[in-house]
Amino acid sequence: MSDTMTLVLIRHGQSEYNLKNLFCGWMDAELSDAGRAEAAAAGRLLRDEGFDFDQCYTSYLKRAIHTLNIALDEMDRAWLPVTKSWRLNERHYGALQGLNKAETAAKYGDEQVHVWRRSYDVRPPALDADDPRNPLTWRQYQDVPRECLPLTECLKDTVARVQPLLEGEILPAMRAGKRVLIVAHGNSLRALVKGFEHLSDEAIAGVNIPTGVPLVYTFDADMNVLDHHYLGDPADIAARTAKTASTGSAK
Amino acid sequence: MSDTMTLVLIRHGQSEYNLKNLFCGWMDAELSDAGRAEAAAAGRLLRDEGFDFDQCYTSYLKRAIHTLNIALDEMDRAWLPVTKSWRLNERHYGALQGLNKAETAAKYGDEQVHVWRRSYDVRPPALDADDPRNPLTWRQYQDVPRECLPLTECLKDTVARVQPLLEGEILPAMRAGKRVLIVAHGNSLRALVKGFEHLSDEAIAGVNIPTGVPLVYTFDADMNVLDHHYLGDPADIAARTAKTASTGSAK
Repeated sequence: MSDTMTLVLIRHGQSEYNLKNLFCGWMDAELSDAGRAEAAAAGRLLRDEGFDFDQCYTSYLKRAIHTLNIALDEMDRAWLPVTKSWRLNERHYGALQGLNKAETAAKYGDEQVHVWRRSYDVRPPALDADDPRNPLTWRQYQDVPRECLPLTECLKDTVARVQPLLEGEILPAMRAGKRVLIVAHGNSLRALVKGFEHLSDEAIAGVNIPTGVPLVYTFDADMNVLDHHYLGDPADIAARTAKTASTGSAK
Repeated sequence: MSDTMTLVLIRHGQSEYNLKNLFCGWMDAELSDAGRAEAAAAGRLLRDEGFDFDQCYTSYLKRAIHTLNIALDEMDRAWLPVTKSWRLNERHYGALQGLNKAETAAKYGDEQVHVWRRSYDVRPPALDADDPRNPLTWRQYQDVPRECLPLTECLKDTVARVQPLLEGEILPAMRAGKRVLIVAHGNSLRALVKGFEHLSDEAIAGVNIPTGVPLVYTFDADMNVLDHHYLGDPADIAARTAKTASTGSAK
């Protein structure tokens, strides 16, 4: 076992909701064709760069699960163990889920939407308990303690719910020498990155993770970050990151 | 928790090797287009008949993993937990793996091939240890104790290796009230069925499981079979079963 640990994060490829510019959150959108292509490209990149894994984690949302499955197929690693956890789900966007981002910005103003999207501790309007989007009534969350199921979340909430999975399963696996791949969502990955890099509540607002680009972290045995970098063409990554940062405005 | 337990078995859809009439065993063949369609049909059938699951099991072989993934997508159950185990792999066909079934029958005679395919305790010729088909050298089996990795198997061997997974994981899950779906292979499923139905070494030779047809078992709390039946159109199932029974002859 090496005294450094490597962890790779991938944000799922473009979904049908991304394509339609809708707030997605815990809505279970499918990958778009472009999203499937991004997933395959991420898998090929990992394979070509010589990465291999022992354990994978993903969310309960099919856009992440499918991204992982497609990437594993490209790596000829369909047989790798995969743990699916609701704790890696995207941030719950509350009553905004399913709404058009530009229309929401036009209605509430760019600034309010920016606050909901980027502030650390301001939650979007909550779902009503009897809203059909309430995860409490969904089959996949029926074994989750009901007090854990959100009606809306800020990033701070997402950080809190990711933590038990990280501390209880992912870090122990890494410490046991397993090479871990996590395929998840913009905000559940930002929640992880905030912790890894000890970023302030303000600093995490400026972090945008592009879709479908493997983000490689190397840690020492005490989980101090030794290195982190994206795999792939820097110009392409910069363009993808800029695109991520700009969505959600009314224009 | 009900005092009966339901278990559904599905044999993977047609693979590229089936299509080319090759012995497959532990060779990691892809599903054919027809196989993917069979997998989707099996998932739709389960969904339409109101089946649901809590835990899935499959092998390390992509034709089974993909059959499961496709069926889960049709059921909108991509998030279900899946345990992949080499113990559910197809019977290891030894040195026959990758050879054409009809050519093998022409070379060794229909009777010899029938013995290798259908006898309970006669193994096909073993792989040489330095054969590239030896699973010992494959990445996915590197954590399997080397004495467990076969160079050839008869059905009796497959029965023996499936047993620890059945006793150690699958039955405890079922006894805990979980509805289990297993997607595996002709012979690893026959190994399970032999045990469930207490079939003799001779009787199991006559059992042919068609591809892509959900086989539903109901057990009492002591694992006595109360019922078993295939889902779907009986004429279609009979035609598929006859096709399975007839492959491997020189004609």
